[in-house]
Amino acid sequence: MFKPALRDGQIIRSPLDIDFYKFTMGQLIFNKYRDVPVRFVFHNRTKGIRLTDTVAFEELRDQLDACRKLRCNITEMHYLRGTNEYQERMFSEPYLEFFNSLALPEYELQYRDDGSISLDFPGAWSKTTYWETMAMSIVNELHFRAQLREMTRFERDRLFAEGVMRLDQKIAKLRKYPEIKFTDFGTRRRFSFLWQNYVVQTMKAELPNQMVGTSNTLLAMRLGLTPMGTSAHEMYMGLYGIMHDSDEQIRSSHNKMLRDWWEQYGFGLSIALTDTYGTSFFFRDMLEEQARKWKGLRHDSGDPIEFGEAAIRFYQAFGIDPKTKLIVFSDGLDVDTIIKIYLHFAGRIQVTFGWGTNLTNDLGLQPLSLVVKLLESNGNPTVKLSDNLGKAMGPVAEVERAKRIFGYTNTQSQQIVY
Amino acid sequence: MFKPALRDGQIIRSPLDIDFYKFTMGQLIFNKYRDVPVRFVFHNRTKGIRLTDTVAFEELRDQLDACRKLRCNITEMHYLRGTNEYQERMFSEPYLEFFNSLALPEYELQYRDDGSISLDFPGAWSKTTYWETMAMSIVNELHFRAQLREMTRFERDRLFAEGVMRLDQKIAKLRKYPEIKFTDFGTRRRFSFLWQNYVVQTMKAELPNQMVGTSNTLLAMRLGLTPMGTSAHEMYMGLYGIMHDSDEQIRSSHNKMLRDWWEQYGFGLSIALTDTYGTSFFFRDMLEEQARKWKGLRHDSGDPIEFGEAAIRFYQAFGIDPKTKLIVFSDGLDVDTIIKIYLHFAGRIQVTFGWGTNLTNDLGLQPLSLVVKLLESNGNPTVKLSDNLGKAMGPVAEVERAKRIFGYTNTQSQQIVY
Repeated sequence: MFKPALRDGQIIRSPLDIDFYKFTMGQLIFNKYRDVPVRFVFHNRTKGIRLTDTVAFEELRDQLDACRKLRCNITEMHYLRGTNEYQERMFSEPYLEFFNSLALPEYELQYRDDGSISLDFPGAWSKTTYWETMAMSIVNELHFRAQLREMTRFERDRLFAEGVMRLDQKIAKLRKYPEIKFTDFGTRRRFSFLWQNYVVQTMKAELPNQMVGTSNTLLAMRLGLTPMGTSAHEMYMGLYGIMHDSDEQIRSSHNKMLRDWWEQYGFGLSIALTDTYGTSFFFRDMLEEQARKWKGLRHDSGDPIEFGEAAIRFYQAFGIDPKTKLIVFSDGLDVDTIIKIYLHFAGRIQVTFGWGTNLTNDLGLQPLSLVVKLLESNGNPTVKLSDNLGKAMGPVAEVERAKRIFGYTNTQSQQIVY
Repeated sequence: MFKPALRDGQIIRSPLDIDFYKFTMGQLIFNKYRDVPVRFVFHNRTKGIRLTDTVAFEELRDQLDACRKLRCNITEMHYLRGTNEYQERMFSEPYLEFFNSLALPEYELQYRDDGSISLDFPGAWSKTTYWETMAMSIVNELHFRAQLREMTRFERDRLFAEGVMRLDQKIAKLRKYPEIKFTDFGTRRRFSFLWQNYVVQTMKAELPNQMVGTSNTLLAMRLGLTPMGTSAHEMYMGLYGIMHDSDEQIRSSHNKMLRDWWEQYGFGLSIALTDTYGTSFFFRDMLEEQARKWKGLRHDSGDPIEFGEAAIRFYQAFGIDPKTKLIVFSDGLDVDTIIKIYLHFAGRIQVTFGWGTNLTNDLGLQPLSLVVKLLESNGNPTVKLSDNLGKAMGPVAEVERAKRIFGYTNTQSQQIVY
């Protein structure tokens, strides 16, 4: 007891140690956009952190190289093949064979003088997409391992004790609201694999009726939890680059993604991410038929209460009872925000929570806000606007174009990342 | 990590897993009072705790029986033989041979209807004395194991996390006063052997210049710390029963103990326990020559500040500079009390601290106040008065007699335990 492992070995030890939505998106990409050239790019949104001071170049390289050699074992393939939570035999045999034989494409790694890491993943969309959460998990764990190494043994114990105490407070608060259901969405921002494993296992043991799943496919498999996840900005952004001949085509790419998704998965995975080009646009773009059929919406930026109220109005405008719909909140949650949102919407619209950083990296050390986002698709720049321009991405001119195309009027923050 | 062991095995695994003063007293007893018949008795001073509810009879019996089979291994004998912290070759070969071949005498165990445990250790003083801390460590650990068993895995994690956080606060506070030196005196009241081991190891790593030793002989051996300890009430009380022919003889038994001790160990272990019959008597009874020669005093009941002030006046009355003397405080310490006492006496008299329950059993669960005390010696009842009558022991009539003999006037509490 009290021997927090200083595991300096391989961080990603299974191709399943990624978010489940990589598989759901991965299959759609494999089926429809297999060879589209894309470029994912790593970016650290955390101010004042020089990652090159904590993450050694050689270690990062070795960890990334190790991912390229990962292959599924028989059990892992059985697990994916047997996945039926959302659709009978949801992963086709051709897709499973493709994934089983996949070697991740090469990456481009450089350390910049300003202390930031330049890490790009160019390649065919169907292959390079899997780098996303692996890269984030790796940089995170290396960054925190470096901090663990600076600590005395007892300082490490104290760190994990703080983590346990904070986890205990979360549990105590959530226990009072047995109707609150949540999912671990913390793979990408986790302190470490072992800590995520511990947190998820503990939540399952302590709040078995509230912790409904995890986005981490490997943990879902190991712990017998439901693998959770739908789709990411990546899908919309990929189509933005593919349908790029005119403003109108770009505009129509958003609904194309919704149609593609429904065609692939139907009702089972019909949770639409709303903020890629701003929620106002999303509500203008989603058709009545889609609003009726789709299970619900995912919120990932902007004020969650305002979003929920807008969603209720959106459904009511079509005469749809919001109580039949579900919102998945997943933006910067902590336990108090979860309770506040739950109480606000109780009885008005269904809510659930995808809990990330604050669930899997809350030990008192500053967590990192890392992202791996699509930078280019099909030779064109991509754009994400979101409901918080602080999260916006894309070349300035392209962002301005997208704001015009999507009628984006949000001015809450002018910070453009690229 | 985060797997606090639910070790259900043997609690005392070595004859050295006892307080070091058992050896220092043990050798004197072996040399001078070997065959004196005595009776030690176990008592739980904690109000409202029915030990028979948590400590299963069979488990307690098995743990005690296991102690009777313990023998030193070669290393342990080497360790005792090599002890020279206080005196060159302080343990004689005959004593070491005696201890090496010792099987602890039989015990008398009964569970009372009122929920208390009746546990007596009759026998030759030189043999039965070693039961004292073993019995307390065992009852404690069984009591807390029972509570661990009722917990979920995460509740156990949370408990140990609480313990780590409390330990961290102690360390943070003590780090600000690098002159404060302390010793682990927590064997008898420890939460468990493993927890004591953890706390002592951590204190050594974090405060290497302040944590000067441990009273636990096994931990001292394993962790390379100085084994600490001098003498207990047991020595005075044993002589009370041996020198029992008249009031005057009883009165003189107190100084006899001091003379015996000096004769055996000289300056090295010359810390006198002051409160057996009240500190006022002690100061009247200690001779000027003894006051000059002895290293210092141990405080174990009553107000520590008042005691220290009285000790300073005591030395000054003989023209002795108190700065050349040492007080070992060992009564119910916590970190704030330690700091308060240190600051109060800084530069006036040397102080150090024997830190017990609050060091080795501070995880948020109620610790037990267990004692194993001499009830009879040489066929006579024994008495302890102390500076807190709540800690007094002995048959009421004998206590009254002792109060008269020793001129005891303290009325702060009238509670008599036996």
